Amino acid sequence: MTQAPTGRFISFEGIDGSGKSTQARLLAEALRGQGREVVLTREPGGSPGAEEIRRLVLEGDPGRWSPETEILLFTAARRDHLERTIRPALTRGAVVISDRFADSTRMYQGSFRANLRPLVDELHRLMIGVEPDLTLILDADPSSSLSRGLARQSGEDRFENMGLAMQEALREGFRALAAAEPRCALIDAAGTPEAVAARIAAAVQARLGAWA
Amino acid sequence: MTQAPTGRFISFEGIDGSGKSTQARLLAEALRGQGREVVLTREPGGSPGAEEIRRLVLEGDPGRWSPETEILLFTAARRDHLERTIRPALTRGAVVISDRFADSTRMYQGSFRANLRPLVDELHRLMIGVEPDLTLILDADPSSSLSRGLARQSGEDRFENMGLAMQEALREGFRALAAAEPRCALIDAAGTPEAVAARIAAAVQARLGAWA
Repeated sequence: MTQAPTGRFISFEGIDGSGKSTQARLLAEALRGQGREVVLTREPGGSPGAEEIRRLVLEGDPGRWSPETEILLFTAARRDHLERTIRPALTRGAVVISDRFADSTRMYQGSFRANLRPLVDELHRLMIGVEPDLTLILDADPSSSLSRGLARQSGEDRFENMGLAMQEALREGFRALAAAEPRCALIDAAGTPEAVAARIAAAVQARLGAWA
Repeated sequence: MTQAPTGRFISFEGIDGSGKSTQARLLAEALRGQGREVVLTREPGGSPGAEEIRRLVLEGDPGRWSPETEILLFTAARRDHLERTIRPALTRGAVVISDRFADSTRMYQGSFRANLRPLVDELHRLMIGVEPDLTLILDADPSSSLSRGLARQSGEDRFENMGLAMQEALREGFRALAAAEPRCALIDAAGTPEAVAARIAAAVQARLGAWA
């Protein structure tokens, strides 16, 4: 018998510009302030190999990969991220905070780029098989989020240029996910970063309180 | 109703140095001499995107990818190869000749790098779903093939440096595959390239004669 890992895996999800990266960083700082080891990571990417796959997927002509090939590449990156970054951290008892995880593939590739949700789910079951202990879904108004996302000029804006109507549909998809999955907490992303961080701290306490 | 494709898909398989590339080229030349359109391709690779994935998998530290991530990357490359090169060629009635296809993943990643054959098979069913009309398995003595493969100095020798014992086991794996799959023809790879080409021409005539 090996000892059960004592770490916890938290993911942030939500539409572009909803504040995921900022809030992931603030939560990491807060938990570190409590003396916890925190591994702050992101997808696509999060390990050296996965970052290389990220570049392959996100750079270049938007039509260079079919939705199916893109899902395979994201799954390969996630598998590497899981093996090289997430699992080792959880095993030594750290908190892993990931800016996006499998739910992003479910929403973007599974529902919006093409109607491939069953394929995404089967591939996840076969090759990943792990869900976060807690998924914080930042629920933001797309009209304000869109300007935030575009202002970032990330250069990897294939998924950020989809326009307002698409972001509205994506928000509804994330809300439906939050309602369907007990591991998810829907967080109102309106207000100052500090105000949102306080809501997140309350959700983490409520959901993982016995552990925290 | 769309018209059924009239093309044919032929793959070459076998251990390293068994003469697959040479024989694929000779068969392509022979079929072109009969006035057929032939698309000569290879795996991993065979389309611009798949060639990029090939570089990602085959270059660098041999331990950089786990067997599972490697299988996902090869499957992503195969999906791109299928969509961008193989299917369009078959649809317009061409003969596609591929130096390696899914059987290589079944043997190398599925059986020899790790015991992941069920995973390889399920992933193939889910994301590829296509088999060649005819697979020519070149059956060669590993002790002579090994020196041929190494002499090539391809620079992508991760899978070519596995040594004689591994190549013997791999040969047995390919022989078992040939016995189990009616689409496969086992070809004695001993002798001059011309002698082997004559055996292959006979097998193609026997298997695809009604079409040829």
